[in-house]
Amino acid sequence: MTTQTEVSWMGALRAGLPADAVLEDAASRAAYSRDSAPFSPAGEPAIVVLPTTVAEVQHVMRTAHAFGVPVVPQGARTGLAGAANADDGCIVLSLLRMNRILEIDPGNRLVRCEPGITNRALSDAVREHGLFFPPDPASTDTCTIGGNIAVGAGGLCCVKYGVTADYVLGLVAVLADGRLMPMGRTTVKGVAGYDLTHLFVGSEGTLGVIVEAVLALRPIRPPSLAMLATFGTATAAGEAIARIIAEGHVPSALELMDKTSSHAVAELGHPMLSADASATLIVECDGNDPANELASIAGLCRGAGALQVTVAADQAESKSVLEARRLVLPAMQAQAARMPGRPTAFIEDVAVPRTKLAPFIDQIASIAEKYRLYISTVGHAGDGNLHPTVVFDKDDPDAFKRAQDAYDAIMAAGLALGGTITGEHGVGILKRDWLRRELDPVNLEMQRGIKRIFDPTGILNPGKVLE
Amino acid sequence: MTTQTEVSWMGALRAGLPADAVLEDAASRAAYSRDSAPFSPAGEPAIVVLPTTVAEVQHVMRTAHAFGVPVVPQGARTGLAGAANADDGCIVLSLLRMNRILEIDPGNRLVRCEPGITNRALSDAVREHGLFFPPDPASTDTCTIGGNIAVGAGGLCCVKYGVTADYVLGLVAVLADGRLMPMGRTTVKGVAGYDLTHLFVGSEGTLGVIVEAVLALRPIRPPSLAMLATFGTATAAGEAIARIIAEGHVPSALELMDKTSSHAVAELGHPMLSADASATLIVECDGNDPANELASIAGLCRGAGALQVTVAADQAESKSVLEARRLVLPAMQAQAARMPGRPTAFIEDVAVPRTKLAPFIDQIASIAEKYRLYISTVGHAGDGNLHPTVVFDKDDPDAFKRAQDAYDAIMAAGLALGGTITGEHGVGILKRDWLRRELDPVNLEMQRGIKRIFDPTGILNPGKVLE
Repeated sequence: MTTQTEVSWMGALRAGLPADAVLEDAASRAAYSRDSAPFSPAGEPAIVVLPTTVAEVQHVMRTAHAFGVPVVPQGARTGLAGAANADDGCIVLSLLRMNRILEIDPGNRLVRCEPGITNRALSDAVREHGLFFPPDPASTDTCTIGGNIAVGAGGLCCVKYGVTADYVLGLVAVLADGRLMPMGRTTVKGVAGYDLTHLFVGSEGTLGVIVEAVLALRPIRPPSLAMLATFGTATAAGEAIARIIAEGHVPSALELMDKTSSHAVAELGHPMLSADASATLIVECDGNDPANELASIAGLCRGAGALQVTVAADQAESKSVLEARRLVLPAMQAQAARMPGRPTAFIEDVAVPRTKLAPFIDQIASIAEKYRLYISTVGHAGDGNLHPTVVFDKDDPDAFKRAQDAYDAIMAAGLALGGTITGEHGVGILKRDWLRRELDPVNLEMQRGIKRIFDPTGILNPGKVLE
Repeated sequence: MTTQTEVSWMGALRAGLPADAVLEDAASRAAYSRDSAPFSPAGEPAIVVLPTTVAEVQHVMRTAHAFGVPVVPQGARTGLAGAANADDGCIVLSLLRMNRILEIDPGNRLVRCEPGITNRALSDAVREHGLFFPPDPASTDTCTIGGNIAVGAGGLCCVKYGVTADYVLGLVAVLADGRLMPMGRTTVKGVAGYDLTHLFVGSEGTLGVIVEAVLALRPIRPPSLAMLATFGTATAAGEAIARIIAEGHVPSALELMDKTSSHAVAELGHPMLSADASATLIVECDGNDPANELASIAGLCRGAGALQVTVAADQAESKSVLEARRLVLPAMQAQAARMPGRPTAFIEDVAVPRTKLAPFIDQIASIAEKYRLYISTVGHAGDGNLHPTVVFDKDDPDAFKRAQDAYDAIMAAGLALGGTITGEHGVGILKRDWLRRELDPVNLEMQRGIKRIFDPTGILNPGKVLE
C-alpha cells in the first residue's frame, strides 16, 4: 500500500532525477532487493534509483533526509554479508551507472574513478598504462570498486600486495544530509587530520555514499610461476606454511585447500590432485626469479612431509596449477548438483592467526561431521583467511538449521583461536550479532557514536554493521 | 600559584601512582614541556607522570576526567609539530617508561609492545627473529613507537615498504574517562566494524592514550646497494624520477637533495657531490638483483641529463653514497655555525604529487630568495614528500618573522600544487591553521564530531590537530 507521505517523497525524489534513473516496477524492486548473502533478511524497496552524477546522489540524500526515508547504497550486489540488502520501503541507491574512470595518472601511479566501475574494468584500464590494481576478489569481473571499498575487499594476491584499504588514498562521499565531503589526498603520504578515508573503508554505506575514489596503483607485476603440493594432513600443510613464512618468502599467492575441496577438484579430473591428499597447498611467486624461489619452497614442502610436489616449468603448467584453486567453486557446484532438493553453497569468511590454520581446518572438519554437512574449506593461507563453504539444501528446514548452527560453530571456533569473524567479506546483517561477540563493548559504543556523527537520524543503510 | 583545587586533584593523582612515577620539580616540568617544534607555544605542566602500567594510565585519566584537568600524552618529544607541547597546568603523561616488548610472534610476523619503546629498540629486537619493522624516521634511535603511531611517522624506506599506518594491526587505548578500549586485531586481514585503529594513527593523543600496539612485520630485507646522480637543474632530476617511476622500479629509497643541500654536503667534503650540481638524487635498491636494477636506473638518470652518476660496486661504496643524505643535517648545522646570533634549523614537511617535485623545489628556491633565508630542501622523492629546512637566527625578530612567512609561503605553494601540509610529521599546534586551509569544512566538522565522541569534555591533548 502506498501512503500519502510515500507519494510526496517519491514525487520529490523523481523531480530531481531523469526518468531513466528511476525504477519502480515490482521486478526491478525485487531484483535490487538483496546481495549474494544467504541467511540475511531483505525487505522490499519502495524505489530504485540509478543516478549518474554526484549532484543526483546529493538530491537523493537531501530528499531522503528531508522525509526521513532509509537509503541503501548498492554496488553490484556480489557481497556475501547482506550489507546491500534493502529495507522495506527504502530507497535503493545503486551506483552502477556511475562507472567512469575520471583520471589515470601514471606519473603519480594513481587513478581517480567513480564507484560503479567494476574491479575488472578498472584493472584493465590501468594495465594499458603499465599499472596494476592488486585487490582481486573472486567476483573481480562484476564487483564494483565502490563495493570493494565499502566492504574492504581482499583477494588472492593480498598476501603479497595488501587489501583494498591499502590502495585507497582519498574518497569523496555524499553524507546523510546530502552534503559533499572530500577526504584523504592525492599524494603518496599524508597525515593531515584524522584518517576519515579509512574510516569509510569497510563502513558498508553506513557513514556516507562514496561517489569518487583516488586509488594508488603499482607497476605491473612481473610474470609469476606456481607450484602445488599435496599433504596427508592439514597439520603437515600448516607446517609447510610455517616454514615458508619463517624462511622469509613472500609469495604472491599462498592458497590452502582442505581434504573435501582437494577431493572434489580431484574428482573433476584435475591431474595434479590426488584422492589420498588431505590438504593441498598452491604457491605462486612473482619476484625476480620465481623459479628459484619456488624451488626453495618446494624443498620446504617436502621437508614438511608433502606427498607430492609439482612445480610448474612454464606459464602453461603454472596456469594448470592455479586452475586447481579456481575449480573449487565449480567442484562444489558439481557436488551440489548430486544433492537432492535445491542445494546452495554458502561461502564463509573467517581469519585466524596464520599459525592457527591447521587446527582451525581440523575443527571445521569436526563441525562438518557433527552437523552432518558437506563443508569444503579453501583460503588464503598466507593471510590466515579461510573460506569454509557449506553446501546444503535450502528447502530442507533441518539442513538449513544445521547449516546455520555450523556457521555459528565456525565463527566461535575462529574467535576462540584469536581470529576475526570476517577477513574480507564484511559484517552486513549476517555478522552483526557476531560483531558484538568479537568487539569490546567500549569499542562498539565508540563505533555507534561515530555512526551518529555522520548519520544522526539513522537513514543510511540502517541496521548494517551496527544495530 | 597552586590553588586548592589543584592540590586536591594532584593529591588524588599522586595517591594512585608510585612516588617515582611523579615529577613535580620545576626543572622536570620544564624539560617535559615541549617537543622539538619551533614556532609552537608551550605551557607549563602542573605535574609530569611516568606510569609503568596500564592501570596507572587508567588512574591518571580517571583522575583527570573527574577533575577536568587537561592531559598531554608524550613520547620522546622528537615530534616537529608541537603535538606533545604542554598546556599551562596540565598533566604531562609520558609513556617513556612503558617500553616493554610483550610478545614477538615470528610465525605470524607480528610484535606486541608498549608505546614507550624506541623504534630502534623494537627494530633491533625483531631483527633477532629475522624480522623487519620498516618505518624509519630520522629520529629512529630515540623516537617511540607510540609517538610514531600518534603522528603517523614515515621515513626513507617508506617509498617501498609503506608508513607506520601500514604496520599497525591493533591498538589498546585508555580513553579520556579512563576506560580501556581494545581495537583492531592480531590477524593479517580483518574488516570487522569501523576501523578505529587507523583513526587513532595520526590522532596525536587527542582521542585516547595508546598503551599497547600490535604491529605487522616483514622478513628482513635483502642487502641493498645505492647510487648517486647529480643534475644541473631540479627539473632534470625530476625527469629522472619520472622515468624511474614510469619504468616500474620500486627502489627502497629515492631521495632528492636540492642545490643548497648538495652544495653544503659538498663543502663538508663528500667526494661524490660536486659544487656545480643543482640537484642530487640518491637511489637505493634491495631487490633480488640490486646491481642490475641500479644499472638500469643509472641509464635512466643519464638519459635525463645527469652530470655524473656513481653506482656503488659494493657495500662500502653504498654506505658512502647514503652518507651524502645523512650528512645533510650536519651540513646545515655547519652552515648555521657560521651565522651570527643563535641560529636554529627548522625542518619542514610537505608532500606533493610526485610529478610536482621539480616545480615545488624551484618555488622553494624562489621563496628562499624572496625572504633572504637559507633554505635547503631534501626529501623522499619517491613519495613526493619534501623537508625544506630553514636555518635562521631565532634571536633576530626580523629573521624569525621572515622564517615564519617563508614557512607559510611553502605551505601555500604545496597546497596549490595539489599537495598536503604534512606528509609524516603531523599537525600538532604548528599546522592547525593550515589544516583548515587544506581540509573541506564539512570534513573538519566531522573530525570535530569524532573528537567529541571520544573526549566529550576536551581534556585529551586540547588544541592539538583541531582547535
